[in-house]
Order: sequence, then structure tokens, then C-alpha cells
Amino acid sequence: MSKLVIVGSVAFDAIETPFGKTDKILGGAATYIGLAASQFGVDSAIVSIVGGDFPTEYLDMLKIRGIDLSALEVVKDGKTFFWSGKYHNDMNSRDTLTTELNVLADFEPVIPEHYRDAAVVMLGNLHPLVQLSVIEQMKAPKMIVLDTMNFWMNHTWDELMQVISKVNVMTINDEEARQLTKEYSLVVAAQKIMKMGPEFVVIKKGEHGALLFHKEDIFFAPALPLEEVFDPTGAGDTFAGGFTGYLTKTGDFSFENMKSAIINGSALASFCVEKFGAEKLLELNREALQRRLQQFKNLTQFNIELVSNMP
Amino acid sequence: MSKLVIVGSVAFDAIETPFGKTDKILGGAATYIGLAASQFGVDSAIVSIVGGDFPTEYLDMLKIRGIDLSALEVVKDGKTFFWSGKYHNDMNSRDTLTTELNVLADFEPVIPEHYRDAAVVMLGNLHPLVQLSVIEQMKAPKMIVLDTMNFWMNHTWDELMQVISKVNVMTINDEEARQLTKEYSLVVAAQKIMKMGPEFVVIKKGEHGALLFHKEDIFFAPALPLEEVFDPTGAGDTFAGGFTGYLTKTGDFSFENMKSAIINGSALASFCVEKFGAEKLLELNREALQRRLQQFKNLTQFNIELVSNMP
Repeated sequence: MSKLVIVGSVAFDAIETPFGKTDKILGGAATYIGLAASQFGVDSAIVSIVGGDFPTEYLDMLKIRGIDLSALEVVKDGKTFFWSGKYHNDMNSRDTLTTELNVLADFEPVIPEHYRDAAVVMLGNLHPLVQLSVIEQMKAPKMIVLDTMNFWMNHTWDELMQVISKVNVMTINDEEARQLTKEYSLVVAAQKIMKMGPEFVVIKKGEHGALLFHKEDIFFAPALPLEEVFDPTGAGDTFAGGFTGYLTKTGDFSFENMKSAIINGSALASFCVEKFGAEKLLELNREALQRRLQQFKNLTQFNIELVSNMP
Repeated sequence: MSKLVIVGSVAFDAIETPFGKTDKILGGAATYIGLAASQFGVDSAIVSIVGGDFPTEYLDMLKIRGIDLSALEVVKDGKTFFWSGKYHNDMNSRDTLTTELNVLADFEPVIPEHYRDAAVVMLGNLHPLVQLSVIEQMKAPKMIVLDTMNFWMNHTWDELMQVISKVNVMTINDEEARQLTKEYSLVVAAQKIMKMGPEFVVIKKGEHGALLFHKEDIFFAPALPLEEVFDPTGAGDTFAGGFTGYLTKTGDFSFENMKSAIINGSALASFCVEKFGAEKLLELNREALQRRLQQFKNLTQFNIELVSNMP
């Protein structure tokens, strides 16, 4: 079976939205990615670091879903990465209240020997040098997918450029794509990013969906229109986890199959925002995912009659 | 052949964008609607008013495309409605520099006898009482489509509510849908608007596409991702013209066919923004439209394998 290596934070989050607030709950990019990818029953490993304060029950919740944690370092006398934030009323913007890197500050990822031959690598948002180190440890990955954010553009531009030059897929949100390329048009921005290295670029537009670019081709996946977004935390990482989980499971890296992967990622992200944190992902099953994929199909599929053939 | 009645402004526009500026050029909601609908070779009439300053060549440009102008009143000693605006660098917002209503201030639409049996009525953005007067003159229209804007919500709420209660389809942009319903979620906003009367609601999100709502069903049409938006003026009206032109031509008002109509409207709008004003619509042909419809299909269509059937 093909394998998926997931690198990213495993963390505590405290979240406040107009609908309520949480204490410290399970969070982190690698957590969301792993939970989403586990829907496809792939052989995945999370490479990350936590402190001695990280509850065993959280580790068990990941293990029980088949996620290998042998490369999840536990620093007994350290503290787990902690983020807290508060969403504004429109749910499209948020203020970060706290960022405590803790053990993540000295994270040096080590890929276990039996995962160095993984087909797919998902590099969650982390310092570009950490991401580079992971790439160097892999034997012959078929697909390296990179996520990043504006912080690294502002502080570690050269290192980020190095990572970008070595990956197959870059996922990035619309504002960050504009910042990275200094282009307003997302079509032009994607073309510029492809020149930096990746053959595929995914531009995430939040509630407005996501665009997949490859050479001259473009595919668009909408976000599911929802009556209520309860908590957007982790939606982007869930999207990435569904995308890479699907690719790992199918082993097909064609543009056509990437479209299906994007739709699977969007479907899982649409679940993620329905409850606080990763709560909804933890109660999900394949039947519910299947029904949601059908909703995406109903939402987007249409017939065009040839105008020239019209009576 | 089924007929389409188009009510709206026929005007002069002067436009400034980051790419350049125009003198007074052909503009107005009914103009864009008519030019878009004419792509489908339907029997349409524009009901509107202009001044003696409106050039004969503009009238000829509409007539030559099969648009009936017998209900386009020409006030010899009056001046044509004039709007001028300047777009900001992101092309998503604009400042209105001038609005001179002129002859439009006293517009009393009269539907010609041989168009009172039209199947489809497109009410372009105008005073709600003008829109109501048109509805009252029609015999038994199958589909009345309403466009409006925030100005009428602010100044003529009761009259607007009366119009909304009498139409089959309401098209409205996202911010205006939120203002009308005081709901942030577009899904909830659409549900509320449907309770006001229309069986169908189209929420236009500009560069983020459009949503079609009917009972519990939702359809999403993306905007075509473009390298460059040259001038957004008239895109919404072009969309409405493509939508109603397609419905008139096919005579099929099912939800399934509405999807195709929305895609046709989006395709025509994607042309409109490529040049100043209505310039691009004037040089368009069916083959170009056909190619663009195929682009929309490529952009949105995908296969989903049943996850449960995966190896």
C-alpha cells in the first residue's frame, strides 16, 4: 500500500467564535491533515513534536485511526505548541491572541526508515528549513505537497523559495499567492508560482472555493454553501489532508484525478467547519463523506446544449 | 417563437479603469441585457427611454441584432441617462462620479401590444414602481426575472417588496442579499428571499461566481478565472441577459435548464469584462460562445469514485 508522510504541528488550540469558545482542545496542522487522510484508510505517519502535557487520549484518538505516531517526538519536560484566536463576526478574519511555539521551536524532524519510501509527502505549514529537511530524507517521493503562509514570506524568503523549487504541488491561499507573486490576478499568480517549481498550484479561496492549476489547465472546486460556519479552524489543513489522502489511496497523480482529490478535500473541509476544532472529523464516516461528495456533484454539474444546434 | 421583454436603462457611460478611460460610450442595463440575449436569436424588445442626443448608429447596432425598439421612447428635446465611474485598482470596487437621470426620471414604460404575451420578462435595475407597471401590463408571463440594487432598498423599501412578491426569479449580489435579509449566510439569505415570493434566487458574487437557489436545491456557477479583467461595467446585466435569453430560447423553466442558463450567462459575462463597455459583446459570435461554454465545462466537471469501492 502506498504511504503518506505528514509533517506539521500537533498542538493545543483555544478558539473563540461568535458561537462560543473552547478551552485548550486538540489542534495543529498535522492533526487535521492526518484525521482527514485517515478517511481513505491510507498508511500514514505524522512527523511532529509535542510536550509531556499532551494527553495520551489524544494520541490514542490518532492511533486508533491507523495513523503511525512512531515519529511523533514527545518531550517529557516540554510544553506542546499552543495557539489561541478569536474569529470576527463574519468568520472570514480572526485575531491571533496567543502563539506559544514551545517544543516546536527546536523541532528537528526524523522520518522513520520505513516511511522514507512513501509515495506522498504533505508538508504542513512550518519553518521552510524543517520542510527542506524532510524532503532531503525522502527516497523517491512521487508527490510532495507544500503548504505555507505569509509569515515565512516575510521572514524566511530565501529558504521558502528553496522549498518551493523542490515540490510538486503548492497549496496557498489567495491573499498569500498575491503577496508571493505581486500579481493580483490569480491566473497570473499561479503561472508565476509554476515557474518557481511546482507543476501544480492550488489556490484556496476559503468560502469561495479553490482553484487547481496545471500547465494551461484550470479546475475550480466550490466550497459547499453552508447555512452556518461554526468554526473555520483547520479547514485548510483538512482540505490538504483530504487531497493528499485521496492521492495516496488512488496512486494516480494525473490532472483528472487531482480534480477528484480537490473535491474530496473540499468535502472534508465542509465537515470540519460544522463543529469546534476537529470534533466533526472525529465522528465522520465514509457514508457521510459519500453523501457529501454527491452534494458537490449536484452543486456543480450541468449540461450545455450546443447553441448552434438549438431550434 | 417565444418573446423576451427587457426593461432597463439605455444610457451613456464614461468609464475609467486602471487600463484607460473612455468618453461617453453606449451603456445601460437594457443595452447589455439585449446584446447578451441576442446571442440566442430570440425575439426581444427593449422598453426604455433616451434623449434626442442618443446616436442613430447606436440604435442601429441594436436593431441589426434583431432587438425590437418600437418601445424605446426618444424624447427629442431631452438628454439620455448618463453615468460615469472610476474603478479602483482591484477592480472590485468603484466610485460613481456622475449620475444624471435626465429623461429616465420621467420614464413611464409602455409595453407594445404584440409583446404583452411574451413568455419572459427581464426587469433591469430601475425604480420598483416602473418595474411594477411593466408586470401589470403583461398578459401571462411564464417567467419574470428581477434585478435591483441597494439604492431601492434604502429609498423605496415597500415598493420593492411589492415587486419581489410578484416575480419568479430574483437576481441580486451578495452584499445586497445580506442587506435585504439581514443574514450573513447566503444560504439563509436565499431562503428568506424565496419566502418573499420568488421561487428562484440567483446570488451574484462577481469574480467568485453565482449561486442559484430553488427550494432545497443549490447550483453554483464559477466565474471564469481570467488573466485580466479590463472593465467590469455591465457584467451583471450581461449575465442577466444571457440567463433570460437562454431561457426564452429553450422555453424550459426547470431547475435543470436554469443551471444551463446560469452557465450561459456566466460565459457571456466573462466576455463582457474583456473590453471597455459593450465592445466585446458587439463582436461576439456563437462559435466563440460555444468554445467558452466548453471552458466552463472543463473548469467544473469531475468524477467521483465511490470511496467505499476503492481497493
